[in-house]
Amino acid sequence: MFTSINKLPNPLPESDGPNPKAAQALQEGLGGQFGEMRTMMQYLFQNINFRGDAKPYQDLLRSIATEEMGHVELISNTINVLLEGSTTQADPNDLPLSIALESPNIHHFLVAGQSCRPVDAAGNPWSATYVYDSGNLVLNMLYNLMLEATGRLQKCRLYEMSDDKAYRATVSYLIVRDLAHEKVFAKALETLGVEWNKTLPVPKVDTSKMPEVRELEELNLHNQQWTMTNEQSGLSLIFNGDSPFKDGQLETLDGIPEGGPIPNLPEAPQEFSPGLDNELKSKFQNLMNKKI
Amino acid sequence: MFTSINKLPNPLPESDGPNPKAAQALQEGLGGQFGEMRTMMQYLFQNINFRGDAKPYQDLLRSIATEEMGHVELISNTINVLLEGSTTQADPNDLPLSIALESPNIHHFLVAGQSCRPVDAAGNPWSATYVYDSGNLVLNMLYNLMLEATGRLQKCRLYEMSDDKAYRATVSYLIVRDLAHEKVFAKALETLGVEWNKTLPVPKVDTSKMPEVRELEELNLHNQQWTMTNEQSGLSLIFNGDSPFKDGQLETLDGIPEGGPIPNLPEAPQEFSPGLDNELKSKFQNLMNKKI
Amino acid sequence: MFTSINKLPNPLPESDGPNPKAAQALQEGLGGQFGEMRTMMQYLFQNINFRGDAKPYQDLLRSIATEEMGHVELISNTINVLLEGSTTQADPNDLPLSIALESPNIHHFLVAGQSCRPVDAAGNPWSATYVYDSGNLVLNMLYNLMLEATGRLQKCRLYEMSDDKAYRATVSYLIVRDLAHEKVFAKALETLGVEWNKTLPVPKVDTSKMPEVRELEELNLHNQQWTMTNEQSGLSLIFNGDSPFKDGQLETLDGIPEGGPIPNLPEAPQEFSPGLDNELKSKFQNLMNKKI
Amino acid sequence: MFTSINKLPNPLPESDGPNPKAAQALQEGLGGQFGEMRTMMQYLFQNINFRGDAKPYQDLLRSIATEEMGHVELISNTINVLLEGSTTQADPNDLPLSIALESPNIHHFLVAGQSCRPVDAAGNPWSATYVYDSGNLVLNMLYNLMLEATGRLQKCRLYEMSDDKAYRATVSYLIVRDLAHEKVFAKALETLGVEWNKTLPVPKVDTSKMPEVRELEELNLHNQQWTMTNEQSGLSLIFNGDSPFKDGQLETLDGIPEGGPIPNLPEAPQEFSPGLDNELKSKFQNLMNKKI
Amino acid sequence: MFTSINKLPNPLPESDGPNPKAAQALQEGLGGQFGEMRTMMQYLFQNINFRGDAKPYQDLLRSIATEEMGHVELISNTINVLLEGSTTQADPNDLPLSIALESPNIHHFLVAGQSCRPVDAAGNPWSATYVYDSGNLVLNMLYNLMLEATGRLQKCRLYEMSDDKAYRATVSYLIVRDLAHEKVFAKALETLGVEWNKTLPVPKVDTSKMPEVRELEELNLHNQQWTMTNEQSGLSLIFNGDSPFKDGQLETLDGIPEGGPIPNLPEAPQEFSPGLDNELKSKFQNLMNKKI
Amino acid sequence: MFTSINKLPNPLPESDGPNPKAAQALQEGLGGQFGEMRTMMQYLFQNINFRGDAKPYQDLLRSIATEEMGHVELISNTINVLLEGSTTQADPNDLPLSIALESPNIHHFLVAGQSCRPVDAAGNPWSATYVYDSGNLVLNMLYNLMLEATGRLQKCRLYEMSDDKAYRATVSYLIVRDLAHEKVFAKALETLGVEWNKTLPVPKVDTSKMPEVRELEELNLHNQQWTMTNEQSGLSLIFNGDSPFKDGQLETLDGIPEGGPIPNLPEAPQEFSPGLDNELKSKFQNLMNKKI
Repeated sequence: MFTSINKLPNPLPESDGPNPKAAQALQEGLGGQFGEMRTMMQYLFQNINFRGDAKPYQDLLRSIATEEMGHVELISNTINVLLEGSTTQADPNDLPLSIALESPNIHHFLVAGQSCRPVDAAGNPWSATYVYDSGNLVLNMLYNLMLEATGRLQKCRLYEMSDDKAYRATVSYLIVRDLAHEKVFAKALETLGVEWNKTLPVPKVDTSKMPEVRELEELNLHNQQWTMTNEQSGLSLIFNGDSPFKDGQLETLDGIPEGGPIPNLPEAPQEFSPGLDNELKSKFQNLMNKKI
Repeated sequence: MFTSINKLPNPLPESDGPNPKAAQALQEGLGGQFGEMRTMMQYLFQNINFRGDAKPYQDLLRSIATEEMGHVELISNTINVLLEGSTTQADPNDLPLSIALESPNIHHFLVAGQSCRPVDAAGNPWSATYVYDSGNLVLNMLYNLMLEATGRLQKCRLYEMSDDKAYRATVSYLIVRDLAHEKVFAKALETLGVEWNKTLPVPKVDTSKMPEVRELEELNLHNQQWTMTNEQSGLSLIFNGDSPFKDGQLETLDGIPEGGPIPNLPEAPQEFSPGLDNELKSKFQNLMNKKI
Repeated sequence: MFTSINKLPNPLPESDGPNPKAAQALQEGLGGQFGEMRTMMQYLFQNINFRGDAKPYQDLLRSIATEEMGHVELISNTINVLLEGSTTQADPNDLPLSIALESPNIHHFLVAGQSCRPVDAAGNPWSATYVYDSGNLVLNMLYNLMLEATGRLQKCRLYEMSDDKAYRATVSYLIVRDLAHEKVFAKALETLGVEWNKTLPVPKVDTSKMPEVRELEELNLHNQQWTMTNEQSGLSLIFNGDSPFKDGQLETLDGIPEGGPIPNLPEAPQEFSPGLDNELKSKFQNLMNKKI
Repeated sequence: MFTSINKLPNPLPESDGPNPKAAQALQEGLGGQFGEMRTMMQYLFQNINFRGDAKPYQDLLRSIATEEMGHVELISNTINVLLEGSTTQADPNDLPLSIALESPNIHHFLVAGQSCRPVDAAGNPWSATYVYDSGNLVLNMLYNLMLEATGRLQKCRLYEMSDDKAYRATVSYLIVRDLAHEKVFAKALETLGVEWNKTLPVPKVDTSKMPEVRELEELNLHNQQWTMTNEQSGLSLIFNGDSPFKDGQLETLDGIPEGGPIPNLPEAPQEFSPGLDNELKSKFQNLMNKKI
Repeated sequence: MFTSINKLPNPLPESDGPNPKAAQALQEGLGGQFGEMRTMMQYLFQNINFRGDAKPYQDLLRSIATEEMGHVELISNTINVLLEGSTTQADPNDLPLSIALESPNIHHFLVAGQSCRPVDAAGNPWSATYVYDSGNLVLNMLYNLMLEATGRLQKCRLYEMSDDKAYRATVSYLIVRDLAHEKVFAKALETLGVEWNKTLPVPKVDTSKMPEVRELEELNLHNQQWTMTNEQSGLSLIFNGDSPFKDGQLETLDGIPEGGPIPNLPEAPQEFSPGLDNELKSKFQNLMNKKI
Repeated sequence: MFTSINKLPNPLPESDGPNPKAAQALQEGLGGQFGEMRTMMQYLFQNINFRGDAKPYQDLLRSIATEEMGHVELISNTINVLLEGSTTQADPNDLPLSIALESPNIHHFLVAGQSCRPVDAAGNPWSATYVYDSGNLVLNMLYNLMLEATGRLQKCRLYEMSDDKAYRATVSYLIVRDLAHEKVFAKALETLGVEWNKTLPVPKVDTSKMPEVRELEELNLHNQQWTMTNEQSGLSLIFNGDSPFKDGQLETLDGIPEGGPIPNLPEAPQEFSPGLDNELKSKFQNLMNKKI
């Protein structure tokens, strides 16, 4: 089971303005083959189907699966704030949704009510064929290491596509967290005998050119992993000591990150969203008034 | 964000014996178009993309999305216990995995290590094209009502396909919870003006012929909804008073269900799962010994 | 069985000029998850698989399934007239199909011969996974109500994306017909006990801002349903009396709408369509001459 | 536009008994890559997107597209009668739907209410990627010829898989109609210059071993094509004279085949289909009583 | 089995400059339903599954299957050279990958490292549902003829979309080779009795307006077919004599085309491709030094 | 480019008898997510899209891509021999293809002419979404290592599902070759710094219980890699010295394996395959007679 906390894992600054193209690029991180929906589902299935008594590895999978649920929320909300304002009419005679014809994903406006969708940056719907669980511990760890490294590679590429402030904040946070997860799985394989020497991480990036990333790494965020639970976890048996990439000391932290508030999306009448007329609104208001 | 609790939402009794066919039938409830992966994802997207200030409906979506995460776990574990033991060799000269050639989903044994997969009962992988979020509040509630009713219809059909004890326990629990969720969305529409009279619920079932279901309804489980959070929730503003189907009093409960333990899956050497040889096991043992 | 009538259900005015982007947006109404191919197929399957003796509901499904076949034709032809002229070269030295590289769906020009395709506005092919038929009458009616309302929501959004005359004529006609169909299913549920009060329709639109829609509603087109057959139909037993949305009197009309002519598409030599050279043309001419 | 006739194109005899395996095999003819949904959609798109003034070919496409709509109905109904009775319990203590676990397509019982689905014989949903329309007349005719020949090949293989009476009646009818359609497209290419000599048809079958097929061919059904409309059609300009396969005289027939009645499916309470309880039934009865 | 030759089948001139839109259009020829991946796989399966003793047809399939492997390489390399240089920054302060947001396939930059992908021009991944193998010789030849003609039709349309030099060289080469393959299958059917007269080829093109195509046809490249093997082949038993389209003499050539060099792609640090830092490069250098 | 050799990479013994279930299980190795079509395509794309001057890694990819083409042929032929004889009628009155209704993949008999298909063991068509090419050298090598290990894991599971002689010969050969490929990629990573110690290979298997595998390993086949070309290759710069798994000495071999003959498939008249009647056969015979 899971319980819900009404927060995003990282604060989300305001966007510099509507940017449907950057929003669509970010969809790769949400619904792409190496995006957050996939990592969340893959680790959840590997956790559930775990065999044998090497439970700390099972706990490790559960921690990251749970963290990824929050990443799904973070990146979805970032897409939404990038879309916000894109259909505001300068002139009341303008066609309110004509921008949709110029946007890379018309479904943001036509199918959803100006919000994110479970698809990748090319518009392909997420598919469970992406989920890998072989039942073999070493193979699963190897796959997950590759998965996190690929996710981070794609986010480093995304970083270079736009410098919108909200976009960059989330992309940078995920670059750092993917690096931490890359370490979790590299460390897990290290406990079973692999020595990585200087091969990892991939990609190797010069964070002096990525100030938003650098700032987070200065907080050691790339060496930390939360248990994402109030219960005991075997994660710390694996995730401790030297980073397998020799860039700091690993820290297992109990519980969850401090996080930031979830943005509120205003009504969008041009999208008929939420679409309540005055009569329905007054019904809702009566409901609220009964609160006391 | 979400936090993890190491429990299933409902206790899972032992299965009457290996039953790969019943396991495959249950896959519909996990990875089918109207299964738990879908409800979880649909409500999560509707929660994230919610617009306007009718927040109790947003909270309602969040509560059920969170509960569905636990349902994914419950049904996955049930599939796993139904598969358990199916490749035990009576005679050591038998081919250990030949049963796979007679099973409706060979992938349980060939791709996964004798465990569940994110697919439906016909083997189709789950697809995000299933996720519906129109941005319109009334439409979303209407869709969700239909979705829960269809889920419950399919589970009532599943009930009639096998009487394995573990299978029935989970199917019956989900029949009752789907009914509760059907009510949540029917009630949400009632607060906006719809009167259902005797049209709902669908399907109409005589639970006197479904003793496992009846037992749970006697606990009023079909009229209860947890908030699935330790924080405040607007759920209770909507989910209270008479059931919209006139079969009891609705109760909003803070927090989560009591639940039951998650089963442990033994090693399956015939599946090379987890596949640790003695050398790797001793490495893992060293890790465990450092615990103190 | 069905018989063919060489007409579109509604007259199609000339387009204001080639508009491949508007054409691609309209594809959602043809091959999208809530488009005309889907409604046609869903109602056809529900009609064929109908169980029991409540035949008027089966007849109702057949009438709308048949009407939707004509909608597939109407929207396809509208896409085609929007594409027409887009590859006309201003200068004979221009690359005739270079416009394709700037169009949202290059397949209109590269795979088809400058014409519509069975895909949605994001380019995804139509899939039969969209078709819903649970076998349960109430559920099917509920789904169909939601389906028509979602179709209408999307068409209202499409209305705001372009004001091309052919585009608007078809979109407006479909907004009105989807409203009529929304009523058919709402009425069907009303006969089984539901009272909708002011919850429906969705979306609620102010048609005073949609003159093309208003004009059609003044003809009561949003309260009429044809039987689409020369035979007897039980439709009128359900579709009569007050509109379930309290906006007029329902009318069941025998037969089919008056409709308008199907446009002729000229040859497109740059597409090698139809691609007959003089020799093949003279063969065809001989054929025509034998007519007498 | 199209109008509906409440008949199947060919009479459907009673099935020899429930046969879910034969039913699933027939799904290939409904939702397979070379099945009736595909021919119907392909010819409809080719008809709508037709360019130039060689209109008899456009009429020809419309006639066959319309006939295929009836074939969709015929094969769907045949699947349904093959499924009928499969969940009748010999003993009231039996699990009513346990047969579903032994059937090749559990979705017949679990998703649909014991009825056909828009999928192929391996369970894959129908996809619009199957639809071919190149815009080029010769290519389209060539494809359609190959399509009909492949459909007929598959139906000849289906013929050899079961001898159930309803199954055989429909399969044989479609073998003969596919041969007629193969001729339509072969003849269309003949009018443009191709001479087939003895290469076609494919497959070449000895109908003396297929008595149900032979019987229909004795009625010249393999040389006839209906216009499927009450309006004028250019079909007869093409489809006349000697068969391109030298096996008789081609006949263009105005209108539609005589056909046979559509079977009624009884209620299936074990499927909750249609699922009306007494209260809902009496509401429906009131409706019927108002008829007078 | 196959052996590899480090050459492209045709020389690839330099591109006129980066052109991501033309690159994406070319993807149809690589991963489209009628592209080179498909022809290669279709002929390979038909070759492997061949039945009976008409072996020259089996050899014919093997020759073309093998040639298509080289076409996959040719078109992939052409896409790559069209993408090359597209992310070069004019100003070091520019965002290096911002061009990706303006490109029709962001995956070229985000998923791949600025290179081709196994998808079509609309971004749909290649699917094995495209592969046709009926087991019937006449049908397979008919399908293949249609397949080559459709491939050539699409390439003729591609020709008209861009005049980049590399693009045109490859498109023109494939137009000519598809015509040769169209003849191979037309000739195969001719040996079984079909006379094509003037119906083929499709499309009929005036190559005087396609100088790059004309130049290759002057070398008789449209009448030649290599065996693509050093072993004996029955191809020449079929592919000889007059062209079935009456445009020259067919020639079966032993072995493979002369071909041209495969281009080298430079490092793309902005894509982290290949992503070796100095330490990893020196490791690689050590490896190279051991060469002697 | 590639050239064709008319041989399988390994001799294929006769099958113990028709076995459609084992045939369908083997489909995973052909068209599955970790099967031979995928490895072939993945390495081909990585080879084509290779960047930079570390060419020995590019050569390595080309060698294995080429070898995998032969594996596609080997496993396809093995499926075909397992299907052979399955529709032979004991009694001439039997329905010749009724076995198809009892087989796990009816498409073997209904769509193909009793032969293999490009699908996996659950019937899902192969998809190019499987192909991974990140552009990053370390990541690609890591993925490929995991891919080969997963392929080998699945083949070890397949080994335990049937002991048919043809099935076992091919499965065992592929187990050994996958191990060799696992080493190639492990070695490639070793040259960049990784030390695997005892973590690999996965799965760890006791080949004393797999006599067919043991026999091949005694030939050192698990330590050998062919260049698959007559040209120079940098493969040997990487693939030499100690096995990264410490089980022997690596050997790079120039050229290709010795291989074995490709089986001939007889005519299958019940499948209309190849479907030539006497007239067409005599035409073919004339063709053969012209040979001299």
